[in-house]
Amino acid sequence: MSMLKRRGIIFPAFSIHGGIAGLFDYGPVGGRLLRKVQQQWREHWLSKGNIVEIDSPTITPETVLQASGHVSAFNDHASECNSCSAIFRSDHLVEEYQQNPDSLSGTQLDTILAENGISCPSCNKSDWAESRPMNLMFGTKIGATRGGRQAYMRPETAQGMFLTFPMIQRHFRNRLPYGAIQIGKGYRNEISPRQGMIRQREFNMAELEYFIDPNADASHDFSKWNEIDFQLIPDPIDGEQKPINIDIGTALTKNIVRHPTVAMFMAETFDFLIKIGADPSRIRFRQHESDEMAHYASDCWDLEMHGSYGWIECVGIAHRGCYDLGAHEEATGTKELRAWRDFDEPIEVDKEVVSAIGSVVGPAFRQQAGQVSQALSELETIPTAFPFDLDLNDGNVVSIDDSMVEVVRIQETIRGEWYLPHVVEPAFGLDRIIWHLLDHGYEMTSKEGEEYLILHLSESVAPYEVVVLPLFEKDGMGKIAKELQCKLLAINGIGVYYDGTRSIGRRYARADEIGVPWAITVDYESMADGTVTVRRRDDQSQIRISTDDLIHHLQSGSLASVF
Amino acid sequence: MSMLKRRGIIFPAFSIHGGIAGLFDYGPVGGRLLRKVQQQWREHWLSKGNIVEIDSPTITPETVLQASGHVSAFNDHASECNSCSAIFRSDHLVEEYQQNPDSLSGTQLDTILAENGISCPSCNKSDWAESRPMNLMFGTKIGATRGGRQAYMRPETAQGMFLTFPMIQRHFRNRLPYGAIQIGKGYRNEISPRQGMIRQREFNMAELEYFIDPNADASHDFSKWNEIDFQLIPDPIDGEQKPINIDIGTALTKNIVRHPTVAMFMAETFDFLIKIGADPSRIRFRQHESDEMAHYASDCWDLEMHGSYGWIECVGIAHRGCYDLGAHEEATGTKELRAWRDFDEPIEVDKEVVSAIGSVVGPAFRQQAGQVSQALSELETIPTAFPFDLDLNDGNVVSIDDSMVEVVRIQETIRGEWYLPHVVEPAFGLDRIIWHLLDHGYEMTSKEGEEYLILHLSESVAPYEVVVLPLFEKDGMGKIAKELQCKLLAINGIGVYYDGTRSIGRRYARADEIGVPWAITVDYESMADGTVTVRRRDDQSQIRISTDDLIHHLQSGSLASVF
Repeated sequence: MSMLKRRGIIFPAFSIHGGIAGLFDYGPVGGRLLRKVQQQWREHWLSKGNIVEIDSPTITPETVLQASGHVSAFNDHASECNSCSAIFRSDHLVEEYQQNPDSLSGTQLDTILAENGISCPSCNKSDWAESRPMNLMFGTKIGATRGGRQAYMRPETAQGMFLTFPMIQRHFRNRLPYGAIQIGKGYRNEISPRQGMIRQREFNMAELEYFIDPNADASHDFSKWNEIDFQLIPDPIDGEQKPINIDIGTALTKNIVRHPTVAMFMAETFDFLIKIGADPSRIRFRQHESDEMAHYASDCWDLEMHGSYGWIECVGIAHRGCYDLGAHEEATGTKELRAWRDFDEPIEVDKEVVSAIGSVVGPAFRQQAGQVSQALSELETIPTAFPFDLDLNDGNVVSIDDSMVEVVRIQETIRGEWYLPHVVEPAFGLDRIIWHLLDHGYEMTSKEGEEYLILHLSESVAPYEVVVLPLFEKDGMGKIAKELQCKLLAINGIGVYYDGTRSIGRRYARADEIGVPWAITVDYESMADGTVTVRRRDDQSQIRISTDDLIHHLQSGSLASVF
Repeated sequence: MSMLKRRGIIFPAFSIHGGIAGLFDYGPVGGRLLRKVQQQWREHWLSKGNIVEIDSPTITPETVLQASGHVSAFNDHASECNSCSAIFRSDHLVEEYQQNPDSLSGTQLDTILAENGISCPSCNKSDWAESRPMNLMFGTKIGATRGGRQAYMRPETAQGMFLTFPMIQRHFRNRLPYGAIQIGKGYRNEISPRQGMIRQREFNMAELEYFIDPNADASHDFSKWNEIDFQLIPDPIDGEQKPINIDIGTALTKNIVRHPTVAMFMAETFDFLIKIGADPSRIRFRQHESDEMAHYASDCWDLEMHGSYGWIECVGIAHRGCYDLGAHEEATGTKELRAWRDFDEPIEVDKEVVSAIGSVVGPAFRQQAGQVSQALSELETIPTAFPFDLDLNDGNVVSIDDSMVEVVRIQETIRGEWYLPHVVEPAFGLDRIIWHLLDHGYEMTSKEGEEYLILHLSESVAPYEVVVLPLFEKDGMGKIAKELQCKLLAINGIGVYYDGTRSIGRRYARADEIGVPWAITVDYESMADGTVTVRRRDDQSQIRISTDDLIHHLQSGSLASVF
């Protein structure tokens, strides 16, 4: 963390004003790292062709989060010390005594606290009040005047994709499967944030909601991943979870992974992490145990990465069924959250329906006659007793007697049906992923008896592609180096850092610490013949090339081809 | 707006749940437009070489926004109707009677309301309570337990750059000028949002804070813009504002624009807008009148774009002096917000200072002796009366008698000084800019007697670069078109839409409506010889090329070179 702070990567926010736990800044170097990881993630999914990106507000009215279940269920249990009034997350207090304590109920937590005589970290007494669920959303009010409307900062970006489903569906002409991604801030008002970057109150999320027809064939071609053994920790049903190494296709065949679309996203997520430089040996998938999984989910895997905090959940891949779209449909009565499915064969239906007799209904109901006919045609059963009360769509009720209707026999062709699509969701915590990229890339070596740090970041996410260093700034070398920086900056999207102060050794060391893959040095020879040296961060080897070649290689992608 | 909604560009958020004024979604097409505008903006500034990108939290503790002045001054005046209790923005009520009413005081607003007998838009009475300032920040509490800390959603991204100034300064080795950008959400809890996209409660901002030494030469080379006449509306001092057409260099020479760095950012901002496709004839710069400008600002220009709401401010370019860094320094006492400036010539100073006599102070104060010596050396005046009370840095006070100190004469070389940098800030409202790009690109023509809409978006921001259309999906053309889409998607960063439903004419029309510059059609000939047609949106001309050529041209940047 001190290196991250010193090198402008990440640091605690608002520190000049005393700081706030759980809020962080990405600095001059980290800001670009974050953007490049976001950009790689975006391109990874958008290049599939049936996925789009949306952007929705972070402020979310309460009604939406009531429907989604967050108002009642986005909680942590908190225990208050009766002696000193300090408040802690109950699951943190018991974590030495219990695996996965965040899945326990309040009563279970209280029992473990009592049975083990767990003491208060503040005052050391063991006298706990009954634990209480605390909602973790940041509340606010929409409307600057009195009577503002209750709202919350979104706990996830996913609701945006569910609520814009009608537009996504129209965009893809109702041809499932398709998905929508969103990259943005999520908020969680932690009771007591800890573990630095891992558990923030405001964090960078990236979520994909992939809509599928549960009746359609979901098979995928997994041959691309045949040779890769994934580390899986399946739900043991009974007993302890044990890791196995298995390729994803076989895991699916053996029903360890329970749905092909879930398996496909596990493999694609693995590919993404490797692309941005994660260490494959420090990635594993852990399946949720049935009591850990949300009640509506049918399969759920956490992708965990290993680093200085042990194994940490960085991505969650869940089959959420039709829970989310169904919840919004139920709350609002909208019919817009359904997709259409053609039957293989149209169904011919012979049935009796009630029909209004126009010559009677017309004069009897005048302007309401249309509504009455409509309501009659929507009756699901044939009325047997007359007169009866008929509910109109506008809320009025009218009385219908037997002179107004007749029963007719009709034949109807039903070509398909409206249904709630199912959703598979890979949800990424980008800050946690970035933390682990830094952890996996961090190598402490030594040089001339002193500690020497190299950050082996992948070129795909390195904050700067190249650094330009004049050997000295005097004798015109500074000027040439600055001009070279300008030329390289004109290459589309390239980040070029200029560093002119202190010894060249110190400047190589700084560039290695922030993970710049290539260092270009302008020296006396450059002034004579226009060549420069290119130094490779990962093994510190150097070669000399012309600046024209340098530009050419950078334009075609990477300087790796020079070595 | 109805076209934007129908085509998945922008729509009112949460509409399934009844909607919330002032909150919008970017949909399947708009989401990508927003990202491309953000990416163009980012690259525009980062390619300068002395600008970095940061990312800071949107949740901001109250102390920060007290220091910045937002808690006391981020207000609109609201007037309440005494008759029906409806509340309106006072400046909206008087806008027919007054230019720039948002710069008026509460008393001025009340006077105009009374003098003109302005009536309540709800109940039509003219009986107003005294107007009151209403703070426009969304409030929240950090900490899910009782006693949470008061905070607000940030009203601007700028505070993030001021608070991370120490890291930005270290990154650039204290060599001004340098800048930092941030792209992200800003929040403004409007009393009564209107004008759709123009006035949102949550909006996409992009701000640059550029730090300069006020003593350094700030001249810039404006020759690049010599031939471009900008439309300026200068502060008239007295009388009405009148537009003039003038190149930026001359405007600076004539002191219409008052600072070279402000002029440079005006020109660079103009360039950016042209690059993403704005119509230059619908861009102008309006200088703030002195009573409209914040008291600390020395020059301030609004870039206005013309569209369906008239002339609308889309960018503000302000010279903010040292106000922001100074405000945080004053609130916190930090010394980290200053930059160092070397004097041209070091200054030699001869002066008398108080010095501790170690052999007396040591035994007298023991562990405190170091602190006492330190505090003595920091005295700004030589004490004349003994004993006197000396304040130590830890808050203690000790008594010093004349045996403990001596006055010594020293010579000091002062090489430079710490100072507060000045800030020039271009602040962009991206939603407003996007609205105007859509407005400037929107062309309603006719085709076969029917209205026909073309959205002339610049290729640099078009949501999709190409659309792939099978003439029909049958006979294998659908399959070939899908394969072609896959191949094109493999080209880095390219957006490729596939559309297979309804007639080819309808699909061209859809693609024209969402601004896709190039439509590729796979027809019977494609099946025979591997060629496709390329159709140019802007003039609907078509040519036929091989798919290899197609891929080659897209890889090298654009299909424009084919025509």
